[in-house]
Amino acid sequence: MSTASKVLAELIDALRCLPGVGAKSAQRMAFHLLERDRDGGRRLAAALTAAMERIGHCRQCRTFSEEPVCALCAGAARDRHVLCVVESPSDLAAIEQATGYRGLYFVLLGRLSPLDGLGPDELGMDLLRRRLAEGEVQELIVATNPTVEGEATAHYLAQLARDAGVRATRLAHGVPLGGELEFIDRSTLAHAFGGRQALD
Amino acid sequence: MSTASKVLAELIDALRCLPGVGAKSAQRMAFHLLERDRDGGRRLAAALTAAMERIGHCRQCRTFSEEPVCALCAGAARDRHVLCVVESPSDLAAIEQATGYRGLYFVLLGRLSPLDGLGPDELGMDLLRRRLAEGEVQELIVATNPTVEGEATAHYLAQLARDAGVRATRLAHGVPLGGELEFIDRSTLAHAFGGRQALD
Ligand SMILES: [Zn+2]
Ligand SMILES: [Zn+2]
Repeated sequence: MSTASKVLAELIDALRCLPGVGAKSAQRMAFHLLERDRDGGRRLAAALTAAMERIGHCRQCRTFSEEPVCALCAGAARDRHVLCVVESPSDLAAIEQATGYRGLYFVLLGRLSPLDGLGPDELGMDLLRRRLAEGEVQELIVATNPTVEGEATAHYLAQLARDAGVRATRLAHGVPLGGELEFIDRSTLAHAFGGRQALD
Repeated sequence: MSTASKVLAELIDALRCLPGVGAKSAQRMAFHLLERDRDGGRRLAAALTAAMERIGHCRQCRTFSEEPVCALCAGAARDRHVLCVVESPSDLAAIEQATGYRGLYFVLLGRLSPLDGLGPDELGMDLLRRRLAEGEVQELIVATNPTVEGEATAHYLAQLARDAGVRATRLAHGVPLGGELEFIDRSTLAHAFGGRQALD
């Protein structure tokens, strides 16, 4: 479609910012919306605009939120004595969908990775330290990914918990080494979550 | 993510209007844009808005165009004596990308399908009849899909060409039965296009 429509060419190109979408799928998506679902296309445009402009991070747990404090942190329904630390909002979503966890979360938005300029400051470790010092949290569940950097981050978190006198636990075996939480099937993740063990 | 953010939930839901995108991919796309490519998300929103509002159909060939007459029809570079009839803009794109075709197109935006309310009127057959009556077109290449409805449409087009005294040709064997042009590999399509045969 080098020729027929500049607006269409721009749409096809812009769709390629979506992960897993190559030239061929982008073209198919653009044609589908134009031929059969213009309302869907308009709704997607509005949803994208709203999300890109309005979604920031919860100042308590750092997950995505359009409010200063997210619904999870603000709500009264969750157990405030258990705090689960994850690397990303995707991991939070995976645990919410797979397990019956009723505690709160803390989202690092990364993992310790000095080469990428990600140290304790970038991951909000001070915020977490202050949270643990408040004394409300009795168990810190460390749910970083089982990668080299995730393990280093887990060690840091275990030390943080130890300093604050808070018990730290880690997801049970069952999470495959080198795997990403986000892509693990629900039952494996639920099993690993249920069988989490004390960090030594 | 039933809980954390309504704006995010709406984005994930809206992404599912894209073909081939389920709940899991929609969530991955939303997180990717929010975490790593907000500029890409904004650009996609703008491209969608522009495309949904501004792209209509060329009044000569009926393909997608933001101008009354598309760049293909308006340009001087193409051979105006050959007209290739396709079912959809996707098929036009597939032929443009796979073959060295230098003629013009006519896009039916469908195929004869009485049960779906698609008859000659809906497919612009009158517009095509008037085009053939002008005398400029010397060959009508029928490139409908090799499905039952596509074949019925091809027969109708062959009759239209016969009535106007225009030679009609059909893509050569090589297009698999039941297949869709859009999904055929380039070399097969190029071969079938080059070896098109007279419709009897
Ligand atoms: Zn929060
Ligand atoms: Zn045109």
